[in-house]
Amino acid sequence: MIHVRLNNNTRANRPLISNYDKLVHTLCSLDLVLRGSVRVTPSNFNNLTLPSYHLSLSTSHQKRKQMADIPIRIGIIGCADIARKVSRAIQLAPNATLSAVASRSIDKAANFAKANGFPPEAKIYDSYESLLDDPDIDAVYLPLPTSLHHKWAVLTAQKKKHLLMEKPLALNVAQFDEILKACEENGVQIMDGTMWVHNPRTYKMKEFLNDKERFGLLKSVNSCFTFFADPDFLKNDIRVKPDLDALGALGDAGWYGIRSVLWAADYELPKTVAALQGPVLNEAGVILACGASLYWEDGKVATFHCSFLSNLTMNLTAIGTCGTLHLTDFIIPYQEHEASYTTSSKPQFNELVTGWVPIPSEHTVTVNVPQEACMVREFASLVENIKKNGAQPDKKWPTISRKTQLVLDAVKASIEKGFEAVEIVS
Amino acid sequence: MIHVRLNNNTRANRPLISNYDKLVHTLCSLDLVLRGSVRVTPSNFNNLTLPSYHLSLSTSHQKRKQMADIPIRIGIIGCADIARKVSRAIQLAPNATLSAVASRSIDKAANFAKANGFPPEAKIYDSYESLLDDPDIDAVYLPLPTSLHHKWAVLTAQKKKHLLMEKPLALNVAQFDEILKACEENGVQIMDGTMWVHNPRTYKMKEFLNDKERFGLLKSVNSCFTFFADPDFLKNDIRVKPDLDALGALGDAGWYGIRSVLWAADYELPKTVAALQGPVLNEAGVILACGASLYWEDGKVATFHCSFLSNLTMNLTAIGTCGTLHLTDFIIPYQEHEASYTTSSKPQFNELVTGWVPIPSEHTVTVNVPQEACMVREFASLVENIKKNGAQPDKKWPTISRKTQLVLDAVKASIEKGFEAVEIVS
Repeated sequence: MIHVRLNNNTRANRPLISNYDKLVHTLCSLDLVLRGSVRVTPSNFNNLTLPSYHLSLSTSHQKRKQMADIPIRIGIIGCADIARKVSRAIQLAPNATLSAVASRSIDKAANFAKANGFPPEAKIYDSYESLLDDPDIDAVYLPLPTSLHHKWAVLTAQKKKHLLMEKPLALNVAQFDEILKACEENGVQIMDGTMWVHNPRTYKMKEFLNDKERFGLLKSVNSCFTFFADPDFLKNDIRVKPDLDALGALGDAGWYGIRSVLWAADYELPKTVAALQGPVLNEAGVILACGASLYWEDGKVATFHCSFLSNLTMNLTAIGTCGTLHLTDFIIPYQEHEASYTTSSKPQFNELVTGWVPIPSEHTVTVNVPQEACMVREFASLVENIKKNGAQPDKKWPTISRKTQLVLDAVKASIEKGFEAVEIVS
Repeated sequence: MIHVRLNNNTRANRPLISNYDKLVHTLCSLDLVLRGSVRVTPSNFNNLTLPSYHLSLSTSHQKRKQMADIPIRIGIIGCADIARKVSRAIQLAPNATLSAVASRSIDKAANFAKANGFPPEAKIYDSYESLLDDPDIDAVYLPLPTSLHHKWAVLTAQKKKHLLMEKPLALNVAQFDEILKACEENGVQIMDGTMWVHNPRTYKMKEFLNDKERFGLLKSVNSCFTFFADPDFLKNDIRVKPDLDALGALGDAGWYGIRSVLWAADYELPKTVAALQGPVLNEAGVILACGASLYWEDGKVATFHCSFLSNLTMNLTAIGTCGTLHLTDFIIPYQEHEASYTTSSKPQFNELVTGWVPIPSEHTVTVNVPQEACMVREFASLVENIKKNGAQPDKKWPTISRKTQLVLDAVKASIEKGFEAVEIVS
């Protein structure tokens, strides 16, 4: 047996890529975490015991990435805040590596690379085009404002780079279809940056929803994602600017609500979507809060609510004929290393209707690889399959992205039409 | 010190009025529970230590009810299932007593009284009218089907009996106004049978909602109450019959959803109400599932969903500018003796947006007196105040009832108008 001992850092001093990350990182490269033979949690990571037969494999993550399986080389276009989290995720993913970053300011790009643990050999570009022309880059992560997605996504595809792209994917589905066409014509993978669907918890929850015995048939879904934006955000953030993230709270928070409803409905599109009363728009007409109801022909219904104006909340409830799934941190789990959800199956009231039998049960899933690293791992493995095995790009993820965007468009249209129900035509 | 020792009963053998009930009952009469000096839980009730200075007060509950403070004498009209729970509540309330029960079948009434622990002196009537003519009855609990409320509630008021009435109070607000008029003309109290608002948890939650520092201003509410009715219910229950509980799931489950939304909004009426797409009606046109969105002029929004067709679920979420209140058993707590809820105040994401700081906190309230007994106690104390002190009937509870009924009417009207928004005119 060998012991891995790392110095503990206090939260305040903890670098963005912490020892905890490094350990998860190394274990990912050893495939220990992925195979479930080792659990890493903040409480055990300072003194973790590894099986001795892995001793010979204890090479550094980066070294392994460069040796055996050549990792997918990812370049980042734009130094958005979210790119910090995804940079770390790329480092943590066993099959991807940070190869380059581009910003219109070379200093900004260099500082970003330095602050976010890019390897020394990573390239720094002062233009997006130069990064796209680099033959040593396989894929691009695109965290630009939505209004720039179409231009840069199409160009990325034309340069034969695979695309991991922040949501919302486009300003509307017509734009997205052009991006998709460019990807298909150039044989590149596209996937959106919705992280929570890659969390191991999400797969466990789906098992429950698929269980006809415990959950039955889906009848309704309610989803809510709100956060309270400060005055600076409401004045200056790209998500309130009509020329940048023009879809506002609907494109940002609402994307997750729509995705969660579709996820619960096995990505079956609703028949109609009607916006709820009371959307809030800023002076420039950008949505700051809104909601919608979705209706399927088989009688399923759903509602979602999104807002920049209310306290941080992210609830998801899916109710079937005989079961209920519920969680309150569906997009970003309260804690990174574990994630919980509640299920209830065929509860009844007791004799005098003064209590429940049984009460719902809580389930906790250990999350050895952070959900965003799971996302990068999934993306990189699809790219790997295309690159090494000549496979066709996977259609599942872009199909899901497109459906999300379709519903998003319908909500926007319904708001514009005074809350009329809008039919979804795929 | 004295010890109270009671035999424990297994759940299966536990009579409807259990030893646990009897103890709570006795403690209620000693005012120990009410004053918070003793906590009774199923785990301690077999071996509870009472302060010795209460020794002299250890008379039976019934005896005390007959002696010092003459309790409010309640008669029950109709032997509905819910009347079993309320019978127990009347017994548990320190200021009320079960005086009579009436059914069109004398056997049914006699059996009901026997099965539900009525005192030997309680009267059994074979007609509602006879019970209403009994001068030894102060108040009536009315659990009849909604379509019969108007007739019997008006008559009850005319007979100068105070009214505790099951929800929904009437088929529509016009009917309710006639009931209310009869109550006002005859100086009797009216209160609806919504139990959860009387739970001590509800008051604790309200403190949080009222806290501008921790919760801020209310922005949105989502409420859901569904249960899965079996085929027999869907065929035979009074709640699916157009001539009995004609408001179906809206009147039954939806009443709670509407009440919870109004409760969170400090009973401020919304400006408009719009039913959601996809209500389900049975062949006779009775609502089996529906939902609605509510909109206030200040920008607050709410949604609720109710159904007889989905797994038992009762979620309530109220989101303010800086806090969130959440619970998943708001109508009937999972367990009778304690009730929980979750609050979160100004949570933020951590540095890399991979977790929450702080995570929401759970609060548990000990419920020494079951919520339905709290309801009866509140009703009886209002009646007592009228009877003994010549006070005017309280207006708070009927005002809340009326607002609930107003919104209920609007949801129904909106469904009938194809989900058009309906203005609330009080």
